[in-house]
Amino acid sequence: MLPTPSDNVDFLEATYRKIFPQDLEFRDRAVAHLEQLTMPHWALGDLMDLAVDLAGMTRSLKPQVKRKKVVVMVGDHGVTVEGVSKYPSEVTAQMVYNFVAGGAGINALARQAGADVVVVDMGCATDLSELAKPGTILSKKIGTGTQNIAHGAAMTRTHAVMAVEAGIEVANQLAPDVDVFGTGDMGIGNTTPSTAIVATLTGKSLDELTGRGTGLDDEQLDHKKKVLERILQINKPDPRDGLDVLAKVGGFEIGGIAGLIIGAAAHRKPVVVDGFISTAGAMIACKLEPFVRDYIICAHRSMEPGHGAMQEKIGCRPLLDLNLRLGEGTGAALAMNLLEAAVAILTEVATFADAGVSGPPVS
Amino acid sequence: MLPTPSDNVDFLEATYRKIFPQDLEFRDRAVAHLEQLTMPHWALGDLMDLAVDLAGMTRSLKPQVKRKKVVVMVGDHGVTVEGVSKYPSEVTAQMVYNFVAGGAGINALARQAGADVVVVDMGCATDLSELAKPGTILSKKIGTGTQNIAHGAAMTRTHAVMAVEAGIEVANQLAPDVDVFGTGDMGIGNTTPSTAIVATLTGKSLDELTGRGTGLDDEQLDHKKKVLERILQINKPDPRDGLDVLAKVGGFEIGGIAGLIIGAAAHRKPVVVDGFISTAGAMIACKLEPFVRDYIICAHRSMEPGHGAMQEKIGCRPLLDLNLRLGEGTGAALAMNLLEAAVAILTEVATFADAGVSGPPVS
Repeated sequence: MLPTPSDNVDFLEATYRKIFPQDLEFRDRAVAHLEQLTMPHWALGDLMDLAVDLAGMTRSLKPQVKRKKVVVMVGDHGVTVEGVSKYPSEVTAQMVYNFVAGGAGINALARQAGADVVVVDMGCATDLSELAKPGTILSKKIGTGTQNIAHGAAMTRTHAVMAVEAGIEVANQLAPDVDVFGTGDMGIGNTTPSTAIVATLTGKSLDELTGRGTGLDDEQLDHKKKVLERILQINKPDPRDGLDVLAKVGGFEIGGIAGLIIGAAAHRKPVVVDGFISTAGAMIACKLEPFVRDYIICAHRSMEPGHGAMQEKIGCRPLLDLNLRLGEGTGAALAMNLLEAAVAILTEVATFADAGVSGPPVS
Repeated sequence: MLPTPSDNVDFLEATYRKIFPQDLEFRDRAVAHLEQLTMPHWALGDLMDLAVDLAGMTRSLKPQVKRKKVVVMVGDHGVTVEGVSKYPSEVTAQMVYNFVAGGAGINALARQAGADVVVVDMGCATDLSELAKPGTILSKKIGTGTQNIAHGAAMTRTHAVMAVEAGIEVANQLAPDVDVFGTGDMGIGNTTPSTAIVATLTGKSLDELTGRGTGLDDEQLDHKKKVLERILQINKPDPRDGLDVLAKVGGFEIGGIAGLIIGAAAHRKPVVVDGFISTAGAMIACKLEPFVRDYIICAHRSMEPGHGAMQEKIGCRPLLDLNLRLGEGTGAALAMNLLEAAVAILTEVATFADAGVSGPPVS
C-alpha cells in the first residue's frame, strides 16, 4: 500500500521511499532477447532502447502499455497581467470545457492513440465545480491561480507541497486502471513560470531559454524576457530546493505534473512527459527525487528554445521532433504509439532460432 | 480507368499522364480550417503540414487513412558475392517466410499501426512459388536476383521497365482497398545498389554516402566503398535517365518500389516511403515522373548516411528520426500513426467559434 496524505507520516517522504531505479536484471534480459530477433543487431534503434526501458520500469518482458491515460493538469497564472501571453486567462477555463466536450487537440490525438484524457483542476482561476462535482473532471484545486511572480512568490511552500501531493494522489487514484501515464498541461501564461524554472535549475541565460509560447512577436518576446529577469531577481529561487523553485516561480499545474510523475514512478509505471510545461514539472520531480528519472519517457522536442536544455538536464532524449508547441499532453499522446511499437518488437518478433533465419557469421 | 501493360499504349507513359500535383484549392481550404482550431496558430507544427498535404493529395478535407498496406518488395542482388553484406543471400527468402509467418519486425509494427503487410516477389533468388501460387505472396518475379553490378549492369533496360510496371500493377491491384500505401524492402545486399543510385543522382561522394548496412565493421565498410567505386566506374549510369540508373545499378525490388510509388500517385493515394532502399526507389520514381513527389511522405531518417542526401534531393523532410536501419517498411508502419493523427487534427478538433474559446487579439 502506498501512503496517503492522511497517514500519520510525511506523505512526500514516504512516497519517495517507494521509488527504486529500473530493474537491471529485466533490462539485461530484454537486451539479450532483442539481440536474438530476426534483424540486424539493434536495427530498430531507439525503439529497442525504449523496449529495454519499459522492461526495466515494469519488471516484465511483456510490459503492459494498452491502458493509457493522459492527465491534463490545469492552473492559472497571476503573471498573465504582465502581458506575457497572447491569450487572456479566461481561455484556461474555456479550454477545460473544450477538453470535456472532446474538441481539443489532446482529445483528437488521445483518441488516435487509444488513450483516455483525465482533466485535473489544480488551480484554475474560474470556478469549475459544475464539472468537478459530477466527476467530469478531478478537482485538486489549491487556489484560484498563482500570485503574480513578477511581484513575489507564486504560492506558499505549503501550497507547493500540497500541489505535489495532489499530483501523487491523482496517480494513486488512477494507477489501478493505468499501464502508462501521460502528462499534459493547460494554463495560459505557463511558459513564463516554466522558463523561470529551467533558468533556475540549469543556470542558462534567459536569452537562450525564453520562447514565443503561444506566438509572441519580437517585441512581446523581448518584454517577456524583461518580465522573467524581474521574476528571478525578486524571487531568487534556490536551485538546490525543488519545492522552493516550485513555490517561488512555479504553478499549481506544474506541481501537479511533478506529483503525477513521482506517483507514476512509485507505482513503477512509465510516464510519458509532454512538452515545455510538462518537462518543467519533470525537472521539479527529478529535483525532489532523482530516481523518478528512470520512469520518465520524453515524448518530443518542442519549439520552445528552453525545452532542449530541460531534457539535457534530466538526461532524456525525446522520441519525436515535430515542431509542436501546444502542450495539453498532445506530444505524449503521439508518443504512446511508439511505446506500443516498442513492446510489439519485444514481444512479437521471432528469434533467428525460432524462424530458421541465418544469423550473421559469429566472428 | 488506369491503363494496364496489356493495353496497346506505352503503360509507363500512360500512367505518368494520370499523375497531377496536389490540389491547391484543397490545400488552401485545409490551411484555412486548421487556422481556426482551438489552439495557438499552427501549434501542432509538422502534423498540420502533413494534414495539408493529405488534403491536397486526396482532394478531401476528410482524407481517408484507415486502410493501410505496407508493400514489401523482395529481390536478390548478384553483388553480394563481393562481400558487401554481413548476411548470406539465402536470408532474403528466409525472411519472406518470416514475413508470411508474421514473425518479422514489419509484422509487429504493421499490427501496431493497423496496417496489412503485402509481400511481393520481384526477384528473389529462391523459388517462392509455393507461397505465390496460393496467393500468400504476390509474384511479379522479373528474375532470380540481379547480375553482379561490380561487373556490369544489374539488369536489361527491358527488365527495368518491367520492374517499374510490376510495381504499378501492384498499386493498381491493391488501390481499391487501400487508403495509404507504405513501401518496404527485403533484399540482402541492397544498400549497395541504393548507395550507387544516390551517388549517381546527387553527385555526392561515396565517402559521404556509404554506410554500414546490416552492420559492417570499419574494414568491411572500406571494402564496400571500393566495390561501389568499381560499380560506378564500370556502369556509368546516366543521372538524367531513371531507367538507365535502375537498369545499371538498381535492383528488382527497387524498381518495384519506384513503380508502387508511381502507381500510388496515379491513384492520388499517399505513399509513406520507408528507409534507405525505399527512398532509392522514390528517387527513381521522381526521376521518371517528378509529380510523384507530391504523394510521397518520408517516414523517417535512417542511420544510413546517404539517406539524408536522398531526402534532400527529393525535397522531403522525414517525420521520425529513431536510428532505425532495418527496412522492411518498419519506419513506414510507425509513421502511419502520424498520418492518422494528422487527419484527427483536421477532422476532430473544434474551432474557436464552435467551442466558444477566445482567440488571440486580431492585430
